[in-house]
Amino acid sequence: MKGWAVSSGISSEAWFNEALYPDWGQRFKVVKELVHKRSPFQDIRIFESSSHGRVLVLDGIIQITERDEFIYQEMLAHVPLFMHPHPKRVLIIGAGDGGVLRRVLQHKTVEKAVMVEIDGDVIELSKQHLPMFGKDAWDDPRADVIVGDGIDYVKKADDGAFDVIIVDSTDPIGVGDVLFTDDFYKNCARILSDEGIIVNQCGVPFQQADELRETTARRAKFFPHVTAYLAAVPTYVGGFMTLGMAKKGTAPHKLELATLQKRAQESEIAESCQYWTPEVHIASFSLPPYIAQNLLRS
Amino acid sequence: MKGWAVSSGISSEAWFNEALYPDWGQRFKVVKELVHKRSPFQDIRIFESSSHGRVLVLDGIIQITERDEFIYQEMLAHVPLFMHPHPKRVLIIGAGDGGVLRRVLQHKTVEKAVMVEIDGDVIELSKQHLPMFGKDAWDDPRADVIVGDGIDYVKKADDGAFDVIIVDSTDPIGVGDVLFTDDFYKNCARILSDEGIIVNQCGVPFQQADELRETTARRAKFFPHVTAYLAAVPTYVGGFMTLGMAKKGTAPHKLELATLQKRAQESEIAESCQYWTPEVHIASFSLPPYIAQNLLRS
Repeated sequence: MKGWAVSSGISSEAWFNEALYPDWGQRFKVVKELVHKRSPFQDIRIFESSSHGRVLVLDGIIQITERDEFIYQEMLAHVPLFMHPHPKRVLIIGAGDGGVLRRVLQHKTVEKAVMVEIDGDVIELSKQHLPMFGKDAWDDPRADVIVGDGIDYVKKADDGAFDVIIVDSTDPIGVGDVLFTDDFYKNCARILSDEGIIVNQCGVPFQQADELRETTARRAKFFPHVTAYLAAVPTYVGGFMTLGMAKKGTAPHKLELATLQKRAQESEIAESCQYWTPEVHIASFSLPPYIAQNLLRS
Repeated sequence: MKGWAVSSGISSEAWFNEALYPDWGQRFKVVKELVHKRSPFQDIRIFESSSHGRVLVLDGIIQITERDEFIYQEMLAHVPLFMHPHPKRVLIIGAGDGGVLRRVLQHKTVEKAVMVEIDGDVIELSKQHLPMFGKDAWDDPRADVIVGDGIDYVKKADDGAFDVIIVDSTDPIGVGDVLFTDDFYKNCARILSDEGIIVNQCGVPFQQADELRETTARRAKFFPHVTAYLAAVPTYVGGFMTLGMAKKGTAPHKLELATLQKRAQESEIAESCQYWTPEVHIASFSLPPYIAQNLLRS
């Protein structure tokens, strides 16, 4: 079942009804609309809710909320960065709110983080209305924030230029669609270094199983190791969401707990985390059968 | 934050808006209302949805849906039953839809399963409209289905009468309230055998953290081992729900993977599961810090 990109508006009772799926969804009581703008790429809305703090909505779909953003951001950034033995150069595609950039730059090993977001309005409006997501990451000298096309960027980047690529896209509809093609993954494999890792959100399999299935099959053409891991993000309704992971090189994607614990301790990041721990990291790769079946190659 | 027990009605557009929380919630498109009855205990409603099949609602709160019931039922039943070395006598409190009873009776070691549900109407309406939950468990000669008060039952039951107690209650509001008291847990500890285990649902900590915190503190008075494990159930919105576990005896609540795999293989249950696996079982005890902090004793 594909997502549904109907912008649903704010009713007179000030409820925002997400319309991702046609017959089931979540709704937020809106305290105040902070901004509503049509960018060249999409409909952008940020509102204040009493239940989840500030909420970012693109084309009618909840992207991130102030109260649960830590879950998605920590799992999207820390899992690949703790898995890679020496992550120095990181490419982030999308993630215009700045939350992933901030988590990436918490890693002292990182020397350069390039962020390529196609919609400059998302960056500007996030800096203005959602400063708690990016915090001071925007001004970090290691950050290179580019307003541009991620597809173009990976096409032109040098072979082996990055150790980790994080794709924080919308669902494969609208703006994010082109991020789920063969060409894109082929270029990602090329610009990753020998033990390089790419992660990307693969939707909520209870609702969008084909998103995980298709992305897995596509990445398997270009990467020797392909898997997925789990995060339970409250406002990505439908139980577990999956984060797809693909890896070059010979090392498997499973690490020993002791290795992760050592890296976590050295990084001093773990104490700031509310979701990620070395144990949760390892547990997140144990997939229930209803999800794991989408990883089997046909 | 406590739950909100307002029955919210079905609007003219045939959407059912759950009103568990005052400012955030889920909504289902209703295909057809199958039954709506006021029992002596609560408001019971069963409707057909296009997204989740049949849905059981008590006092306006979603209890279980046809499409995702397997997650809750498998985790509530199989985790304690595979953890206990020889579960022969099982007490189920609540769970009037029959889904837990069915999973318990899948275990060949079980000689007797007593189910005590206070609301006979829930049982009767479930048999009639939700037969896919209990299936033939209702007629199993090992099943003893009692319409009665669980509090009374545990007060009168013999010492050491059960190996596992499963409490499938509503949230600690309305009918289920009395299931979360000191007296109740004291009696449960008494009627459990030496290595006895009790599990009960402890809500969704992202929304209802005090439910987990209070239940944990209460059980710690009567059980040497108290912990919780996770399940991501789509229609219990808010990310992970927690299932509280308390245990008598000397053995810890953590098992080796190999032990679980052996028990799963001997039981022949694993192949029917869509969520539970030995690996998922073990992973479910790795709690993110935002949840684990509720287990710390004050």
